[in-house]
Amino acid sequence: MAFVGRGRGYDRAITVFSPDGKLFQVQYAQEAVKRGYTALGVKVNSGVVLAAERRSPSKLVEDGSVEKIFQVDDHIGAGASGLIADARVLIDRARIEAQVNRMRYDEPIPVETLSRSIGDIKQMYTQHGGVRPFGTRFLIGGVDANGPQLYETDPSGVVAAYKAHAIGGGAAGAIEVLESRYEEDASLDDAISLALDALKTVIEGKLGSDKVEMTIIPAETEEFEKLSKDKVDEYIKKAG
Amino acid sequence: MAFVGRGRGYDRAITVFSPDGKLFQVQYAQEAVKRGYTALGVKVNSGVVLAAERRSPSKLVEDGSVEKIFQVDDHIGAGASGLIADARVLIDRARIEAQVNRMRYDEPIPVETLSRSIGDIKQMYTQHGGVRPFGTRFLIGGVDANGPQLYETDPSGVVAAYKAHAIGGGAAGAIEVLESRYEEDASLDDAISLALDALKTVIEGKLGSDKVEMTIIPAETEEFEKLSKDKVDEYIKKAG
Amino acid sequence: MAFVGRGRGYDRAITVFSPDGKLFQVQYAQEAVKRGYTALGVKVNSGVVLAAERRSPSKLVEDGSVEKIFQVDDHIGAGASGLIADARVLIDRARIEAQVNRMRYDEPIPVETLSRSIGDIKQMYTQHGGVRPFGTRFLIGGVDANGPQLYETDPSGVVAAYKAHAIGGGAAGAIEVLESRYEEDASLDDAISLALDALKTVIEGKLGSDKVEMTIIPAETEEFEKLSKDKVDEYIKKAG
Amino acid sequence: MAFVGRGRGYDRAITVFSPDGKLFQVQYAQEAVKRGYTALGVKVNSGVVLAAERRSPSKLVEDGSVEKIFQVDDHIGAGASGLIADARVLIDRARIEAQVNRMRYDEPIPVETLSRSIGDIKQMYTQHGGVRPFGTRFLIGGVDANGPQLYETDPSGVVAAYKAHAIGGGAAGAIEVLESRYEEDASLDDAISLALDALKTVIEGKLGSDKVEMTIIPAETEEFEKLSKDKVDEYIKKAG
Amino acid sequence: MAFVGRGRGYDRAITVFSPDGKLFQVQYAQEAVKRGYTALGVKVNSGVVLAAERRSPSKLVEDGSVEKIFQVDDHIGAGASGLIADARVLIDRARIEAQVNRMRYDEPIPVETLSRSIGDIKQMYTQHGGVRPFGTRFLIGGVDANGPQLYETDPSGVVAAYKAHAIGGGAAGAIEVLESRYEEDASLDDAISLALDALKTVIEGKLGSDKVEMTIIPAETEEFEKLSKDKVDEYIKKAG
Amino acid sequence: MAFVGRGRGYDRAITVFSPDGKLFQVQYAQEAVKRGYTALGVKVNSGVVLAAERRSPSKLVEDGSVEKIFQVDDHIGAGASGLIADARVLIDRARIEAQVNRMRYDEPIPVETLSRSIGDIKQMYTQHGGVRPFGTRFLIGGVDANGPQLYETDPSGVVAAYKAHAIGGGAAGAIEVLESRYEEDASLDDAISLALDALKTVIEGKLGSDKVEMTIIPAETEEFEKLSKDKVDEYIKKAG
Amino acid sequence: MAFVGRGRGYDRAITVFSPDGKLFQVQYAQEAVKRGYTALGVKVNSGVVLAAERRSPSKLVEDGSVEKIFQVDDHIGAGASGLIADARVLIDRARIEAQVNRMRYDEPIPVETLSRSIGDIKQMYTQHGGVRPFGTRFLIGGVDANGPQLYETDPSGVVAAYKAHAIGGGAAGAIEVLESRYEEDASLDDAISLALDALKTVIEGKLGSDKVEMTIIPAETEEFEKLSKDKVDEYIKKAG
Repeated sequence: MAFVGRGRGYDRAITVFSPDGKLFQVQYAQEAVKRGYTALGVKVNSGVVLAAERRSPSKLVEDGSVEKIFQVDDHIGAGASGLIADARVLIDRARIEAQVNRMRYDEPIPVETLSRSIGDIKQMYTQHGGVRPFGTRFLIGGVDANGPQLYETDPSGVVAAYKAHAIGGGAAGAIEVLESRYEEDASLDDAISLALDALKTVIEGKLGSDKVEMTIIPAETEEFEKLSKDKVDEYIKKAG
Repeated sequence: MAFVGRGRGYDRAITVFSPDGKLFQVQYAQEAVKRGYTALGVKVNSGVVLAAERRSPSKLVEDGSVEKIFQVDDHIGAGASGLIADARVLIDRARIEAQVNRMRYDEPIPVETLSRSIGDIKQMYTQHGGVRPFGTRFLIGGVDANGPQLYETDPSGVVAAYKAHAIGGGAAGAIEVLESRYEEDASLDDAISLALDALKTVIEGKLGSDKVEMTIIPAETEEFEKLSKDKVDEYIKKAG
Repeated sequence: MAFVGRGRGYDRAITVFSPDGKLFQVQYAQEAVKRGYTALGVKVNSGVVLAAERRSPSKLVEDGSVEKIFQVDDHIGAGASGLIADARVLIDRARIEAQVNRMRYDEPIPVETLSRSIGDIKQMYTQHGGVRPFGTRFLIGGVDANGPQLYETDPSGVVAAYKAHAIGGGAAGAIEVLESRYEEDASLDDAISLALDALKTVIEGKLGSDKVEMTIIPAETEEFEKLSKDKVDEYIKKAG
Repeated sequence: MAFVGRGRGYDRAITVFSPDGKLFQVQYAQEAVKRGYTALGVKVNSGVVLAAERRSPSKLVEDGSVEKIFQVDDHIGAGASGLIADARVLIDRARIEAQVNRMRYDEPIPVETLSRSIGDIKQMYTQHGGVRPFGTRFLIGGVDANGPQLYETDPSGVVAAYKAHAIGGGAAGAIEVLESRYEEDASLDDAISLALDALKTVIEGKLGSDKVEMTIIPAETEEFEKLSKDKVDEYIKKAG
Repeated sequence: MAFVGRGRGYDRAITVFSPDGKLFQVQYAQEAVKRGYTALGVKVNSGVVLAAERRSPSKLVEDGSVEKIFQVDDHIGAGASGLIADARVLIDRARIEAQVNRMRYDEPIPVETLSRSIGDIKQMYTQHGGVRPFGTRFLIGGVDANGPQLYETDPSGVVAAYKAHAIGGGAAGAIEVLESRYEEDASLDDAISLALDALKTVIEGKLGSDKVEMTIIPAETEEFEKLSKDKVDEYIKKAG
Repeated sequence: MAFVGRGRGYDRAITVFSPDGKLFQVQYAQEAVKRGYTALGVKVNSGVVLAAERRSPSKLVEDGSVEKIFQVDDHIGAGASGLIADARVLIDRARIEAQVNRMRYDEPIPVETLSRSIGDIKQMYTQHGGVRPFGTRFLIGGVDANGPQLYETDPSGVVAAYKAHAIGGGAAGAIEVLESRYEEDASLDDAISLALDALKTVIEGKLGSDKVEMTIIPAETEEFEKLSKDKVDEYIKKAG
Repeated sequence: MAFVGRGRGYDRAITVFSPDGKLFQVQYAQEAVKRGYTALGVKVNSGVVLAAERRSPSKLVEDGSVEKIFQVDDHIGAGASGLIADARVLIDRARIEAQVNRMRYDEPIPVETLSRSIGDIKQMYTQHGGVRPFGTRFLIGGVDANGPQLYETDPSGVVAAYKAHAIGGGAAGAIEVLESRYEEDASLDDAISLALDALKTVIEGKLGSDKVEMTIIPAETEEFEKLSKDKVDEYIKKAG
């Protein structure tokens, strides 16, 4: 009942405030993220691990076709949760931002700069008329001059740095695992192992490379590296 | 009842989020696709087959006049389902995109690039005010430097790669057939035969070239080739 | 009852989707066509016949003043049904399109190209805000390099090729006659006779040149030719 | 009751279709015309007569101050009915159109060209957002290369040629008189006499030059000529 | 009751037609005029008199501070009724119009030209979205090449010429006096006397220069001349 | 009850007329002024006094931080009441206006010119869509070539000249005092004394420099001069 | 109940006035601030202290990642409360403003100039259509040519100078402490101590550097200096 009254007054055309100071359209966009697949990131001194749940709508979908972890630049990747089409559009802008930075300053874009720039775009879509907020949350991981980095941006445009974090439908359970076992000076292998354990909480049945998408950016190479299915299975066995 | 409340609050002027994080206008556009004719694609190592249901609103309509499979470039075709006029407008943009690619890079556009570009246009129509989403879904098939390719784009702008897939009103039944019998290394003739069998599930009465529109892009020639009615009937007989 | 709820939610300002994937404003525009006078076209190998019902709102209206068959170019004509003012505006654009084609390519515009271009304009008016769809349907007939052609465009922007077709309030009855007697290799005289018989189904009282507007584009001359009242009466007598 | 429901859904901001294919704002604009004063035109071989009812809101209004018959060019006049301010704005555009034609082609604008151009403006105001239709109907009379001409344009943008016609609140009665006595080869004096008789049906009390505004464009002179009150009274006496 | 229904449907955002062909926003703007102070004009062969009721909201308001009679050019003045701020904005445009006319044609602007130009602006504000009509009515008086002139413009943009006229809250009573005693060849003194008598009908208590604002434009001088309080009191005594 | 009906129909998006010719949004903006602090002005032959109530939201607010009397130019000040942020924005425009006048005409801007210019901006915000009226009223005082001046502008854009005037929540009581004791040829000291007495009616407790903001523009110096707390206390003691 | 009626009429699309002269959207934005973390500032002769509550949404968030105190320029910092993404966007504009000032005038921007410029942007977002107000309040502290400065800007655009002030959810309690113990000539150490005591009122459990973010701008150095965790803990111990 109360809902009907609210619904009609606040969430039209432009994102407006409700009487208690909330932006409904932004909160609804957050719901879109909660309905999305789970993605997570683990940042240790030796690098960053990004992982995401992989669930095929059909047996005939090509492997890796609907990616949830995007390469943004040589040294930066991003895991997305929520509306995939929204994510792709933002990732494209992020890639351009990164290219422009290389041309202008002749150096790779810092992960924080890139993350804030995505946050700014998202904020703009919560304040101006004629558009809706982006229904997507990102975990942006990379290695730059300051070492490994992991940032999150949410639909409202908030940007925060994390040691490890999870987003999407199964975030709560995954975060619990991350919090209980995270160690900053873990090896990259241990970080991968932690990421797999955290993902297990949201995956039905036995864990396998068909259900996991995984990427690492080692501090040493500073290079985005997508793990092959074999590599993932190997880690699963090791983590076993 | 509940519907009235929802209807009035969320689906006006611009595509906004509902309290549970859905974009109603996009979902309604998906309904337009479900009301459309069935189209399907089968991608094997030897090439791609695109097929679509053909149903005449009148005995006096010219054969092939309301096409559901469009040629986008020499090496790419697209089967559409949903609002035909929306499809035509997007296909026109895709053709220009393909031409521009040839001029700029002096080579045929990759099927994935083209598909993502259509997905981006579709996404934009779900986020900005003053427009409605496109009520059409595409199966984009072609052969490029990476061999045969088959992509789907939906009204929200999601792009996914498939081995074989069906869209439109009868998609569910057709997909079942495709999943049960698909083989990646099948010959093109076998792929055509599979496509016909899958289409049979949505066609009333005896299958015939008057009820099927079919196109192939063989890996060998990399050329879009519309099958004549005789050719189709020949395949039907063979598949018989 | 249910209607009131629907009416308020979907058909404002911009053409949006209803929950079942329909565009209400487009469907309402189709209703405007159904309330319009009947027009029809017959395409045979020897040419195209366009005919339309003529009904004077007043005895003092000038003959042929409110035309329903428009000349678009030397070789193309169009019968319209629905809102006459909308039709005139679109026909003006079609004429410019045809002129531009002659200037640019030094040859008459193909009938299909012209028809698709009108379809594209119509589609645009169903997707962008601040405008309503065109409340008019066209039968576009002509003779080009591929021989006689007959296309229909509807308010949603769909374009289809026909052998013979009717639009407007009495379309159903007229189409029945066309379907039962159409022959592709009929003479132009027989085609005219068929058109008159089909029109008879929608005309009250005795058929006469005061109730019929008729135009031919013979395959031989490729010239749009409006039939005089005498000519029409002659054909009526012959068809008698 | 039903009306309230309809009213809220269809006639806002932009002219949209009702479920039965009507444009309400256009129909309401037609009502504005029906509430207006009566104007009429008679076209004979020897010229055109435009006449309009004259009713002063106050004894102190200057004669001819709120004109209902406008001179558009040397050879064209227009009688208006409906919202006078709307009419004046459109007449100003028509005058510019006529001037431009003289400059561009070095000849007077054909009456049909001018009428269609006004019709096009009117149609545009029924299809695009942010404006309302023009609440005025015109009878445009003149003499051009094709002899005397009389056209009507209505709020929807429809343009039609007439031998004689009436618009405004008393149109029905006036048209009856025109239809019963019109002759194409009447003298201009007889045409004036017919116009006065038709006007009589809508004028209360004794006919006099204080109640009639009258203009002629003789075929011979091709010049717009406003009749003086004396001239009008003379004709009334003659018509007696 | 009926009002609520009407209110919601017709008078939003843009001035739209009601089912019976009226423009509600324009009619409501007319109400703003009826709530305004009374102004009147008397045009005789020897010149024009403009007069207006003067009522101070406070004893400390400066005399003549909220003027209701504006000088537009050397030879033209305007009495306004309704929203004073709206009036001032339009008068500023009128002054520019007058200046431009002097520069362009090297002669004073005709009163009719100026009045129509204000009427055109007013009409535009009744037809385009995003604005409301002007809530003001003018009596524009002046002397030009055609002698003394008096025009009225209302919120809808209608322009009419008057011998004498009154606007605003007390218009009805004032017009009655004007109609009963107006003479075209009266002296300017008699015209002033008539204006004062007409104003008396709307002024409470004894007439005095503190309650009357008065301006004359004599035919001889063609100069706008604001009467001093002494001058006004002198006339009141004379009119006695 | 009645309110609900009104609220929904008239005060949206753009300032529209109510059926009785009022502009609700403007009236609501006037309410914002009535909720504001009191400011007043006294203009005598020897100069202008501007005074305003000073009430700190907190003990820690800096003195004079939320100013209610603004300096516009060397010779002009303005007391504001209503929304302070709206006032500041308009004062900034007024300052630019004053600067431009000095550059263009090499002389200080007349107080009336400045006041009308602010009134014009305010009027514009009551007539065009997409903005709300300014919720602020000004008392603009200064000394120019015509001596001391005091003008008021309200949210509708009305501009009026006053001898003395008060605005804001306690205007009524303050005006009463001003009216009873105002003398045009008072000394500036007496004017200050009068201003303090008028302010007393709205100030709770004992009058002190902590509760009063005061500015003078003496006719002699033509310079805006903010009175120090000591100066104010001195006057309070004198007025005692 | 009453709320529903109000909600629908006043807070759409654009910030409009309610019948009692309030801007609802602005008030709702104030609510967003009240839901935010607490920030406070203390300005003494020896410098400015900015402090803010630090609460981590997760154990794995990086320290200082979601900053609430921003550096704007060498000599200016700002504490924000409310929507963090809104704050970041405004701070970016403030930084540009400060840079531009350095380039244009070759000197650091005065704190008041910067604060008013942010207030102006905020005001604009409360008056123009198509945007919502900023849901953030700032405490802007710095040292410029006039010594230490502390300003507050609220969502409506009001700017005020303070000796000491607090914003956000726990403002009331913190202000109480500030008011009771503030001394203008305190040492910077005492000011820090006061800030910590004020913060204590809003922090649950034992105060520690993990719960406090603190920045100083000493009058001597005129340099923004973020206090390290150790430094903060030292002060806490001292304040003990």
